[in-house]
Amino acid sequence: MKITSQFDSGNIEVISATDPADIRLAIRKDNQSDFYQWFHFRLNTPHIEAHTIKITNVNGSAYPDGWKDYQAVASYDRENWFRVDTEYNGKELVITHYPEAESIYFAYFAPYSYEQHLDLLQQAHLHDRCQLVELGDTLDGRDMSLLVIGEPAEGKRNIWITARQHPGETMAEWFVEGLLDRLLDDEDAVARSLLDEAVFYVVPNMNPDGSVRGHLRTNAIGVNLNREWQTPSMEKSPEVYLVREKMMQVGVDMYLDVHGDENIPYNFLAGSEGVPCFDERMSALEQSFRAALLTASPEFQNEHGYEVDAPGKANLTVASNWVAEQFNCLAFTLEMPFKDNDKLPDELYGWSDVRSMKFGRDSLTAILAVAGSLR
Amino acid sequence: MKITSQFDSGNIEVISATDPADIRLAIRKDNQSDFYQWFHFRLNTPHIEAHTIKITNVNGSAYPDGWKDYQAVASYDRENWFRVDTEYNGKELVITHYPEAESIYFAYFAPYSYEQHLDLLQQAHLHDRCQLVELGDTLDGRDMSLLVIGEPAEGKRNIWITARQHPGETMAEWFVEGLLDRLLDDEDAVARSLLDEAVFYVVPNMNPDGSVRGHLRTNAIGVNLNREWQTPSMEKSPEVYLVREKMMQVGVDMYLDVHGDENIPYNFLAGSEGVPCFDERMSALEQSFRAALLTASPEFQNEHGYEVDAPGKANLTVASNWVAEQFNCLAFTLEMPFKDNDKLPDELYGWSDVRSMKFGRDSLTAILAVAGSLR
Amino acid sequence: MKITSQFDSGNIEVISATDPADIRLAIRKDNQSDFYQWFHFRLNTPHIEAHTIKITNVNGSAYPDGWKDYQAVASYDRENWFRVDTEYNGKELVITHYPEAESIYFAYFAPYSYEQHLDLLQQAHLHDRCQLVELGDTLDGRDMSLLVIGEPAEGKRNIWITARQHPGETMAEWFVEGLLDRLLDDEDAVARSLLDEAVFYVVPNMNPDGSVRGHLRTNAIGVNLNREWQTPSMEKSPEVYLVREKMMQVGVDMYLDVHGDENIPYNFLAGSEGVPCFDERMSALEQSFRAALLTASPEFQNEHGYEVDAPGKANLTVASNWVAEQFNCLAFTLEMPFKDNDKLPDELYGWSDVRSMKFGRDSLTAILAVAGSLR
Amino acid sequence: MKITSQFDSGNIEVISATDPADIRLAIRKDNQSDFYQWFHFRLNTPHIEAHTIKITNVNGSAYPDGWKDYQAVASYDRENWFRVDTEYNGKELVITHYPEAESIYFAYFAPYSYEQHLDLLQQAHLHDRCQLVELGDTLDGRDMSLLVIGEPAEGKRNIWITARQHPGETMAEWFVEGLLDRLLDDEDAVARSLLDEAVFYVVPNMNPDGSVRGHLRTNAIGVNLNREWQTPSMEKSPEVYLVREKMMQVGVDMYLDVHGDENIPYNFLAGSEGVPCFDERMSALEQSFRAALLTASPEFQNEHGYEVDAPGKANLTVASNWVAEQFNCLAFTLEMPFKDNDKLPDELYGWSDVRSMKFGRDSLTAILAVAGSLR
Ligand SMILES: [Ca+2]
Ligand SMILES: [Ca+2]
Ligand SMILES: [Ca+2]
Ligand SMILES: [Ca+2]
Repeated sequence: MKITSQFDSGNIEVISATDPADIRLAIRKDNQSDFYQWFHFRLNTPHIEAHTIKITNVNGSAYPDGWKDYQAVASYDRENWFRVDTEYNGKELVITHYPEAESIYFAYFAPYSYEQHLDLLQQAHLHDRCQLVELGDTLDGRDMSLLVIGEPAEGKRNIWITARQHPGETMAEWFVEGLLDRLLDDEDAVARSLLDEAVFYVVPNMNPDGSVRGHLRTNAIGVNLNREWQTPSMEKSPEVYLVREKMMQVGVDMYLDVHGDENIPYNFLAGSEGVPCFDERMSALEQSFRAALLTASPEFQNEHGYEVDAPGKANLTVASNWVAEQFNCLAFTLEMPFKDNDKLPDELYGWSDVRSMKFGRDSLTAILAVAGSLR
Repeated sequence: MKITSQFDSGNIEVISATDPADIRLAIRKDNQSDFYQWFHFRLNTPHIEAHTIKITNVNGSAYPDGWKDYQAVASYDRENWFRVDTEYNGKELVITHYPEAESIYFAYFAPYSYEQHLDLLQQAHLHDRCQLVELGDTLDGRDMSLLVIGEPAEGKRNIWITARQHPGETMAEWFVEGLLDRLLDDEDAVARSLLDEAVFYVVPNMNPDGSVRGHLRTNAIGVNLNREWQTPSMEKSPEVYLVREKMMQVGVDMYLDVHGDENIPYNFLAGSEGVPCFDERMSALEQSFRAALLTASPEFQNEHGYEVDAPGKANLTVASNWVAEQFNCLAFTLEMPFKDNDKLPDELYGWSDVRSMKFGRDSLTAILAVAGSLR
Repeated sequence: MKITSQFDSGNIEVISATDPADIRLAIRKDNQSDFYQWFHFRLNTPHIEAHTIKITNVNGSAYPDGWKDYQAVASYDRENWFRVDTEYNGKELVITHYPEAESIYFAYFAPYSYEQHLDLLQQAHLHDRCQLVELGDTLDGRDMSLLVIGEPAEGKRNIWITARQHPGETMAEWFVEGLLDRLLDDEDAVARSLLDEAVFYVVPNMNPDGSVRGHLRTNAIGVNLNREWQTPSMEKSPEVYLVREKMMQVGVDMYLDVHGDENIPYNFLAGSEGVPCFDERMSALEQSFRAALLTASPEFQNEHGYEVDAPGKANLTVASNWVAEQFNCLAFTLEMPFKDNDKLPDELYGWSDVRSMKFGRDSLTAILAVAGSLR
Repeated sequence: MKITSQFDSGNIEVISATDPADIRLAIRKDNQSDFYQWFHFRLNTPHIEAHTIKITNVNGSAYPDGWKDYQAVASYDRENWFRVDTEYNGKELVITHYPEAESIYFAYFAPYSYEQHLDLLQQAHLHDRCQLVELGDTLDGRDMSLLVIGEPAEGKRNIWITARQHPGETMAEWFVEGLLDRLLDDEDAVARSLLDEAVFYVVPNMNPDGSVRGHLRTNAIGVNLNREWQTPSMEKSPEVYLVREKMMQVGVDMYLDVHGDENIPYNFLAGSEGVPCFDERMSALEQSFRAALLTASPEFQNEHGYEVDAPGKANLTVASNWVAEQFNCLAFTLEMPFKDNDKLPDELYGWSDVRSMKFGRDSLTAILAVAGSLR
């Protein structure tokens, strides 16, 4: 039996992997941070019997409640990620696995590797309507890459989408992939209509270093990028600094910051009710977008989510709040579950890479519904 | 130079095909009918020069106004159908073609062959949620095939979709293919939500004989099926007779009859305002569906279309009217253009097979929006 | 329960199809001929139980011994054709079928439709190195189509390949599809090397009318084309007449005429030992090709096959003999089984469409081995 | 303008990247080694003009003659790798690039990433006939993975294939991918015949650490694995140690060690003429294999290659020599060019990933030709 995590976004420590009935593992912390929850490893086993895999340190993880009703994902081919039998006993996460083949990967959610990310960028930028803009370097020396879709022109709206500030929230990059697939489809009517009135600025991965390192929430040196938007620096948070500079340069008329949530088993939006400039126009826009998204995708709902910020009480270090206030525009944090979507549960896959992509695709329908009213 | 139409849905007569500058053709009438407008043929030419192809009898066709602003479609590979330079001079339709390869197909719209139809049925019926039901024989001995998607259950709505009563309106079967692709996608939220509350009865091709024969509007013996719904017979219109029997057996809560329109360059719906039972409930349902379809697809619009029937003046021999009245339910004729969609024009493809499929796919979003209110 | 054959290459007559335990069918004769053996039909059944399908007139078919150890092919999706439980009791062919889905196709061998044929021609001719040449009309008005691959040039060999003179021998067109796939692959070394020294003239289907009509051996009016090569006529055998004219015009340095054999469960070649001009050069060439084909494909063997013609005793009305004598060149009839290849049996698929394609592909390796010695 | 190599197998140092007409770069040495020749980087440029890229330290690289007549490869989409205008002026390698899109990758040969490697393993091992065996850890903690294809049984030959001891020779893993594709194809006759008499032991990547690090010839600590076969150790060369142990355990009847050669523009084999046990049997086997490979693939030739070792003078630290002597069996080093194959030059691609895969595929035909004689 052999357990490895020495690959892109791998994260596990082996305590004991000799007895199939008692495999004991632990999740590594993000570098220079106490956060941990993301795991990703591969098991190779010659034993044709049930394997009991215990992740022993989940109690101390960033979101212990995230393990309740959570099922781990696994894949034999690294393409099809399905849910496996998982239980949280209040102390350990226990995955029970009966091998159908000798090698299997387990993860917190379907991974999205840096190689996939580089493929996404190259394939996207070959479209006539798409441009790949490099903003600068991360702390580990990777590229901060921006895709600009559509022809900038007088009067067009600037719609920004960022994903994966928290690198373990891979569903955010799957969402972006689905959205880009449609936006770059020359025969799709929603895409064509949107690009008549808007330009999209898409950052598919805000945190490449954390992604490769197998982090949950932070960049190479343990910084939570979604608390850096008021005072980013090239030393601590170049990822935010560089994107923010570009936002200031081109402007923002609408913003979606795409995330995953460990606890809540629903897709939901967090708006900007707590930012100082929030007013009726912004409230009306928020309602329009929520209504259109309800029509566009049954994956969405408005009942479950975060508590709404009291007026003036928003945390302006958070991306969507900072953008809403800075640009006086419609801005949301969009959250997808690590668990299943309880509105439309799927025993086999739970919330998944495929559903995230479709949700990204369908969200463009809702963006189109408000695009004409953004200014 | 050689022109052929001896294949599925082929239709052309060669008057003269010797001089590339003066190729003269005529469209055949539907068997036992005066209708004609559909054409489909292949040109093989060794000449590397401009070819002028005149269809000489378009003035007498079913919809002479259909030729205004119409561009023929062509394909080198039988997969990618693009628009070619076409002019209607008031007498002839003149296609100008400069060959990029020696063999090219021309058609009135992207064809959908009987072999494709048989493939569609077989592939669909392999899904767990889909059943292929054979209703009986056409006059030429082909199968009248019905796909039933979803598990019938107490309280579920019965949603019927029929396409291609007029066999030359191939966009109708492309629409159905797009709709089925989504409906049979196990990870699509719209499909999953719909099948929780409804069962779909889909007839992808109401007129296989006319389709294979290269007809515009009628079946094997020249009968216009969309005027047969009050008194169909196994002798003249078994296609309608058999489908109608099944409708009576299972019931109808919503009905879309999918068509193409020769004249109007828009996608539009024709409702049931003129049927005797039309009332406020039906009117409200119609408005809901139109509104949801506007959100779901920018290909749709509500401004252009047929004149609305005066109350009680509907032609009840027409499928959607007969169904609306018989089942007191929401029923539409859905029309797509042979020309381009002037709301979102595309010089290269015009209205196309691909756009028809996407429109079929997106229309499910609008069906979901009304599904809960159908009864 | 419903059995249909009203589609491309369909052939069956229903005697009785009411009791799943006793379905009785018969094969139709080729038009104006007594030959029959090809069948192709579809069964739609609501019964979830074993079905016993008897083809009752196989004793009088063209090759009654062909039914010994023969297993019929079937497909649920019209793409994957597998073998089904079949027994020949000396009088009837009895297929036992337990339905896994409600609709299934049965055939004598994996069908190759005229629509597929038209697709093959169009896709092939778009390659730079391939040209589609139309030779004239069949009796039913279809195109006799020739693909020319490679640039004619001084000193290059002319290699001719024809398939499916007998339309029920669909494996011949599958073989050609596999061969063309490779020949048109710009990065395949065998293809590149071959086209440096030869031009290929390929007729993927010598008998389109018989193919569409569901014939075993003859064209639209019951003529066996492979007995027409000495005196073809536009009245009886335009298919041969037109191809022969073209051969005379461009010349032939090697010829493969591709067939299926009902009786012998092996792939084999029939050479030209019986033609008057057969000599040592030709014999050496035959041996070289046979040896190279043995290396290139384990599907091939030299032990089983037809009895070799005595010197001077060849039937010169047969294509490969006529060509060998006329052009004093290497010429073979290549035969593949309707049954399995007993050298390498495959219980699931028997000899198949896929194996025919691979065999076509690999045969190019053997052609390359002799190409330099053909003249 | 931005040049990056912070990704899998990236290797470049930027000296100056400000002036498109004078971009100056250098290749990094393998860790703890003086070898270097592999490069892999990405250029993002806003300038629509010719770019002159100079690699300034090629004179000191491992194989300076390798730069003569060498053309670098590049890709816009990371899938299609084509040759670009490259000149070696005796001091620098000068690549001239006119950008068709803003982002492009350059490399010494088409890269094969560790993620691709992991995909290859997972997809292969899902086949019934394939097993994934983990042998142990590399120095960087990656898996040494072995694919076993076929059912071990009395009398079956053990055929070993290893690739990429030198990690920069990526063509070796492309070769293995092509070979595996065919070997795992259930309907391929060569594969089926081979697996009737042999079991394959395939190590797709002998040097994962060097591969990820962007090395040319050595592992994580600068050891040339192909000089370690007599005395490998877990400290210096665990990659060789682990594979060698497994070879000793199961035995070897034939061995191909797949490589790339920097200098010689041909595919060729280096045999075991210099090992002590070399005898007539081995010589005959070598000749048989060479002859069969000539028939199987025109990419192969026997004229150009390394000088043959004098009897008894083989370097037994080299894998193929060590195996030949240890197991008294047929063993080759198979070399493919970094340049083009001058026997069949291709201006656009040169020798390529695709051609390497096809060569791997076709080499199985030659292995089959000798498989029966291996013992
Ligand atoms: Ca671009
Ligand atoms: Ca089904
Ligand atoms: Ca061509
Ligand atoms: Ca396996």
